[in-house]
Amino acid sequence: MTDEDYMKRALSLARRGMGKTSPNPMVGALIVKDDRVLGEGYYRYFGGRHAEVNALEKSGKNVNRATLYVTLEPCCHYGQTPPCTEAIIASGIGNVVIGMLDPDKRVSGRSVEILREQGIECTVGILEEECRALNEAYIKHRSTGLPFVTVKFAQTLDGRIASSTGHSRWISSPSSRKLGHKLRTRHDAVLVGIGTVAKDNPQLTVRLVADRSPLRIILDSSLRIAPDALVLTEQEKAKTLIAATPDAPRDRSATLEKMGIEVLMVPQDARGDVDLRQLLKLLGERNVSSILVEGGAETITSFLRLGLVDRLVVFTAPRIMGRGLEAVGELDIKEVTGALKLTFEKVYRCAEDVVIEARIG
Amino acid sequence: MTDEDYMKRALSLARRGMGKTSPNPMVGALIVKDDRVLGEGYYRYFGGRHAEVNALEKSGKNVNRATLYVTLEPCCHYGQTPPCTEAIIASGIGNVVIGMLDPDKRVSGRSVEILREQGIECTVGILEEECRALNEAYIKHRSTGLPFVTVKFAQTLDGRIASSTGHSRWISSPSSRKLGHKLRTRHDAVLVGIGTVAKDNPQLTVRLVADRSPLRIILDSSLRIAPDALVLTEQEKAKTLIAATPDAPRDRSATLEKMGIEVLMVPQDARGDVDLRQLLKLLGERNVSSILVEGGAETITSFLRLGLVDRLVVFTAPRIMGRGLEAVGELDIKEVTGALKLTFEKVYRCAEDVVIEARIG
Repeated sequence: MTDEDYMKRALSLARRGMGKTSPNPMVGALIVKDDRVLGEGYYRYFGGRHAEVNALEKSGKNVNRATLYVTLEPCCHYGQTPPCTEAIIASGIGNVVIGMLDPDKRVSGRSVEILREQGIECTVGILEEECRALNEAYIKHRSTGLPFVTVKFAQTLDGRIASSTGHSRWISSPSSRKLGHKLRTRHDAVLVGIGTVAKDNPQLTVRLVADRSPLRIILDSSLRIAPDALVLTEQEKAKTLIAATPDAPRDRSATLEKMGIEVLMVPQDARGDVDLRQLLKLLGERNVSSILVEGGAETITSFLRLGLVDRLVVFTAPRIMGRGLEAVGELDIKEVTGALKLTFEKVYRCAEDVVIEARIG
Repeated sequence: MTDEDYMKRALSLARRGMGKTSPNPMVGALIVKDDRVLGEGYYRYFGGRHAEVNALEKSGKNVNRATLYVTLEPCCHYGQTPPCTEAIIASGIGNVVIGMLDPDKRVSGRSVEILREQGIECTVGILEEECRALNEAYIKHRSTGLPFVTVKFAQTLDGRIASSTGHSRWISSPSSRKLGHKLRTRHDAVLVGIGTVAKDNPQLTVRLVADRSPLRIILDSSLRIAPDALVLTEQEKAKTLIAATPDAPRDRSATLEKMGIEVLMVPQDARGDVDLRQLLKLLGERNVSSILVEGGAETITSFLRLGLVDRLVVFTAPRIMGRGLEAVGELDIKEVTGALKLTFEKVYRCAEDVVIEARIG
């Protein structure tokens, strides 16, 4: 077994924490001695014990001169738990193999220094690309303060997300909608514009898979939302945050707050709408590290225009609609070479549909 | 080796004739005795000897009681060559395993009867689906008189085939454009509307791969084409057919004919344009068994509206364009359930692009 093999295992352990660790990263760890795995662990939920500590606990006492594999540099600061560097040093571990350095300014290579000072051998950068991909939201949030933004939509093969009359239920297959719900559980928040709420009255909760629902964010500059909108109900299942501008009528915000709905006042942009950059900054400060933007076209277009999107997940259904509504509106692009460049990272079939996961750039 | 294994081999032999046999089908054959392949053959080009005869020739004299595998029912009529049934009977072959019956009314099960009457055992329907897929154009043309119609376009992930200013070169990658040329060589004709000729001035020949260029068909109801359009040149490399209506100015058709360009007069539809159903009928009568419709949006939309499309090949490039031109225009579809249903038959990557091959229905 090579370092890469063990790191692959650590990555798959890390993934078990998916959707439960934010704003902290997913981390997996295992301890190996004489080519035998002594113990495994992962970061199970936000606030829980770290992966390294869980792996040490599972390994028993005989870890002297063993090797610790961990997807992310161990911490060296007191957070909700004591520094992992101390636990590693105390254990007698002789080698630490690390997937990637922690972009957190309090760590960022310091733990490696501390371990090396104690005579522990450290190797950094094993399967680094995979480790970075796993925690892309964490990395962006920790290094920029902004949440990682994924835009998701379902379209027909000819690029329509709804008919010309606005009919859109359902473009994609039941399996794709289930995958859409799974995608929601992997994000801290799901976001739509007020237009989508007014037209479709979605619940925006996770129902098709058994998992937690993320925060629901509604862009509603002037607080037009109907008091009986479904996103305002079931607050015990999923909280809702309405992003409005300071110009929004005060009586409406008062009504919403009486219902227990938080209204976040965000500075307005040149058009008098919620300034999306400011919104992302405020959300990042609240430890929202990832957002799934689900529509509608106006909201998707605004995020793309401002360059705020990191990733797109596009479901293409085996249908031709003809004239209708497209996901992306005016971007002032006149030539093909000026079009937004993407990289198709993953392409796969989901029942009868095709799913494309694309990164900007 | 099973019957399916040998038929798979026969299919791959048949494919070698791709693009060269129309309006006849691609056919592959091999002769097997005591689990040993004695000889193989395929239908190499229109007018050539049939696959069965080529396989017999390669097999030598000792084919007594051998098994002939052939993707399509052998012929039993005098065409450009004598009936294959006679050659099979004369050879002493004991078994014939057939992929599919020939939809040609002159054959259509009769050859199987003739062979059985001679005491030759016949099995029909081995890998029938694959055999039918291989010759879908032939099957449609032979059973309806109409050519098989494939619509091809390249779009951005958000469904745009050009920017709002009409700029479209190039949406897809060089590899995809090469694949597009390969697609041309597999069709009897490539077709575009006069709008595309006026805007892009394409050559519509096969240049990126070394192979023959199909017939170029231009929909040009009132003969607006410029005399220096590139589709009118290089007639030695690819013939051009202009489809016009009887109302088109006579001097223009005279000019074109003087240049050696054929003008096909097609009855007009309610809007005064070329009636596409009539056009397909006329082309079918001329043994054009497959057409690749390459645009523009108006032409694609007309074919789809009239239900004349069998297949779509859509290249999706990793770009976001925002507002621009879509491949498919108004189809009067108001609800998702009314959208044209497709089946995604093949989904694959071509360099940075994704290609979806879809069947209508």
